[in-house]
Amino acid sequence: MENWLTKRVLLSPKQTAVVFEGQERTFQELEQDVQKWAKHLAGLEHLPKRVAVLTENNLTGYEIILALQQLGCTLVLLNSRLASDELQFQLDDAEIQLCLVSDELGAQYQLKVEQQLTFTDLRQIKAARAQIISDFAEDQVTTIMYTSGTTGRPKGVQQTFKNHFYSAVGSALNLGLGTDDNWLCAVPIFHISGFSIMMRGLIYGMTVTLFDQFNAGKVAQALVQQPVTTMSVVPYMLKQLLALQPMVPYNSHFRCLLLGGGPIDRETLEVCQQRQIPVIQSYGMTETASQVVALSFKDAPRKIGSAGKPLFPVSVRIQGASQPGQVGEIYLQSPTLTPGYLKRPAKNKQLLAASWFKTGDLGYLDAEGFLFVKGREGDMISSGGENIFPNEVEAAYVNFPELSQIVVVGVADEKWGARPVAFVAGTRLTATALREYGRAHLAHYKVPVAFYQVEDFPRTASGKIQRRRLLNARYQQNKL
Amino acid sequence: MENWLTKRVLLSPKQTAVVFEGQERTFQELEQDVQKWAKHLAGLEHLPKRVAVLTENNLTGYEIILALQQLGCTLVLLNSRLASDELQFQLDDAEIQLCLVSDELGAQYQLKVEQQLTFTDLRQIKAARAQIISDFAEDQVTTIMYTSGTTGRPKGVQQTFKNHFYSAVGSALNLGLGTDDNWLCAVPIFHISGFSIMMRGLIYGMTVTLFDQFNAGKVAQALVQQPVTTMSVVPYMLKQLLALQPMVPYNSHFRCLLLGGGPIDRETLEVCQQRQIPVIQSYGMTETASQVVALSFKDAPRKIGSAGKPLFPVSVRIQGASQPGQVGEIYLQSPTLTPGYLKRPAKNKQLLAASWFKTGDLGYLDAEGFLFVKGREGDMISSGGENIFPNEVEAAYVNFPELSQIVVVGVADEKWGARPVAFVAGTRLTATALREYGRAHLAHYKVPVAFYQVEDFPRTASGKIQRRRLLNARYQQNKL
Repeated sequence: MENWLTKRVLLSPKQTAVVFEGQERTFQELEQDVQKWAKHLAGLEHLPKRVAVLTENNLTGYEIILALQQLGCTLVLLNSRLASDELQFQLDDAEIQLCLVSDELGAQYQLKVEQQLTFTDLRQIKAARAQIISDFAEDQVTTIMYTSGTTGRPKGVQQTFKNHFYSAVGSALNLGLGTDDNWLCAVPIFHISGFSIMMRGLIYGMTVTLFDQFNAGKVAQALVQQPVTTMSVVPYMLKQLLALQPMVPYNSHFRCLLLGGGPIDRETLEVCQQRQIPVIQSYGMTETASQVVALSFKDAPRKIGSAGKPLFPVSVRIQGASQPGQVGEIYLQSPTLTPGYLKRPAKNKQLLAASWFKTGDLGYLDAEGFLFVKGREGDMISSGGENIFPNEVEAAYVNFPELSQIVVVGVADEKWGARPVAFVAGTRLTATALREYGRAHLAHYKVPVAFYQVEDFPRTASGKIQRRRLLNARYQQNKL
Repeated sequence: MENWLTKRVLLSPKQTAVVFEGQERTFQELEQDVQKWAKHLAGLEHLPKRVAVLTENNLTGYEIILALQQLGCTLVLLNSRLASDELQFQLDDAEIQLCLVSDELGAQYQLKVEQQLTFTDLRQIKAARAQIISDFAEDQVTTIMYTSGTTGRPKGVQQTFKNHFYSAVGSALNLGLGTDDNWLCAVPIFHISGFSIMMRGLIYGMTVTLFDQFNAGKVAQALVQQPVTTMSVVPYMLKQLLALQPMVPYNSHFRCLLLGGGPIDRETLEVCQQRQIPVIQSYGMTETASQVVALSFKDAPRKIGSAGKPLFPVSVRIQGASQPGQVGEIYLQSPTLTPGYLKRPAKNKQLLAASWFKTGDLGYLDAEGFLFVKGREGDMISSGGENIFPNEVEAAYVNFPELSQIVVVGVADEKWGARPVAFVAGTRLTATALREYGRAHLAHYKVPVAFYQVEDFPRTASGKIQRRRLLNARYQQNKL
């Protein structure tokens, strides 16, 4: 297929491509800026085939990412919220020689890499011309993103142009596609949630309204005042948006919030329904280049809590389930599936040999084919022969007074194999009250055996809570 | 990819799939009916891999076509407007053993084929079960359509699932996609214009409002009273729709008429603009599984007469043109391009060897990349070193009083190489008036040297005028 940026400029040069802090770029202007950066990059003595980028969401980062793609480089998109050691692991794993860093992050990090350049450094270098690739070959790996992996070493997920194209197409076949589409991106562009919005922008000819970070007040203002049609959110973002009172109605073009990044409680979704904010739940991962399962507008009201149905190009089955409702591991087939992990030959051999991708998530399909995700296989707590899903326990506490967050994790237990404990945030919480509430709403064995008060929760860059890290002693200092 | 019908039923079982003469089928009901037909087909002693179907637009034909696709057969879609000999050529060329014919056409045709069954015959046969294919493999040929070929023997164009999928995707990326999309199909389903609507229906989850044939009054009524959003038209259909007076405004969901099937005069498009009927011009062919170039909504008003820009997955170049505006042969690259013609190894070798597909059409790209199609390479008249495009001459006559149609063709001329002659329909036409009018509006050498009055014009099944057939003596009996 023709280079998507070139093609998009041919198709809709004057359409707004990106809006960031009041600055606007049409596709034509964006291409011109991207070409400037491509010339800066071409001025380097040696431009490696694989280049790492470390940036927050901003216009320059956006342009440099596109410039590297235009030059045919594979991008390793680094997570700006990681610690230095974590970044260093990824740089070493991907054998990075050149790392481009935003000025702000460049002042914070000194990474061990052959060449580290800030965006300002890069601007000093220049070639007369840059060799832009004319085609986006479908099997070419254009991005590598390390999975935030709550367990084990992070793995570099390779994503091809085909992966991103089918991801955009699958989403459009579910959400529809309008000439005035405008997607608000307050999720990181180094993450698949944000990067997939950039690619949709090129493929659909859609405006991306970019935010440097998620600030509920500013984002809500944009949803009201700007012609935003769609926004990607993760649960904590949605909850913060709902917490703003009073909510002014969103602008008349607004169509939906696309909710990814893990399960959400029923009550939050019901609040959205009451306020008539269409929320499309979805399910996906870095390995599938964004959502592969999503709820449609039509089904949302009656299937609250479901992640929806597999997108048109995607197939889902539940391993071992012989009838609807049976829980098992979620298996996937999708043209958006990664061709493999970087330097993980054993893992990739497995991946290629299997006709289905094992997600490591547990869930079930109901009789109509709607997927309900129960949680990570590793998070399930097997206690005395019973299976406890942390999400289910957490959801039971959603109306507990002054409890702002609860996360349930299994701890080893000699007698029962494992038992649930809970990490809670909120005010005036007592173990007695929490335990009694649990007993009133849950089977006895599901009630957490201990409650720990915490200040905040360990999260991945996309806002997912890292349950396993709660088992570190520092989260268990304040037992209720 | 998963079987599109199975998948669509999973995604939107209760969505209306097809409406025909007051009968409606949801996707679930359609699948049930299709499965019934699949069982009838499975009851045959021998079901060949390649099966011909000869049907008008009707619900049974629609279902049987889908049933054959569900069984993994390759469909040879026969044109019900052809003469017996023409059909026989295609049956022989495709080595057809089984031909399914609608009851009505079955009474008209006795084709030489191992087994010819009417739909009623087929209903008498039945197996307990049918083996539905679970996947639509992207390189599998699912349809073969013979090009209406105004010159030479018809060629069987093979179309794969991938061709049809990308055709639907390319169209959606241009026209957009809404949850209430409803496409009126009054073009034949045996032709790519109609068949591509059937496939879009499955891929988008869209309602197809099917008509047995184009009747301007009935179609206009549907555009007004039914929630039709889109309709495929060819020029003569558009003109007939416009000729209806007074035009009631179309229903509030209506979005556009997609115009294919050859060039149209500027005046007709201007009438559409005046009446605020959005017309999307497009350009495509059987070999590219429908439109590959189309005008977007936004560009339509200022680029009247252009076929638009290549759809997102498509590339176009003009052979030999070194700058915008230069006319040359239109070359294409597209994932919708046929893998080859049936039993035409020499032609296919050429096709595969070339990185671009030669359309045989002449045209140019303007400075902004809009394609203007001038006509078939073979239709161009080279007269004394000057090139004359029939379309241009015809367009000059559009306001000539009481002229309903004019078609210009080149005839061999000893002195000039070739010279234009015109075939005209209308009342009170005289050669003198026509010639004088031409001289006032055209360069001298472009004015037709002879005018022949005709009753009607030879057309292909899709409504395209077959210029070459006008050179048959019977059209030249009434010289003005």
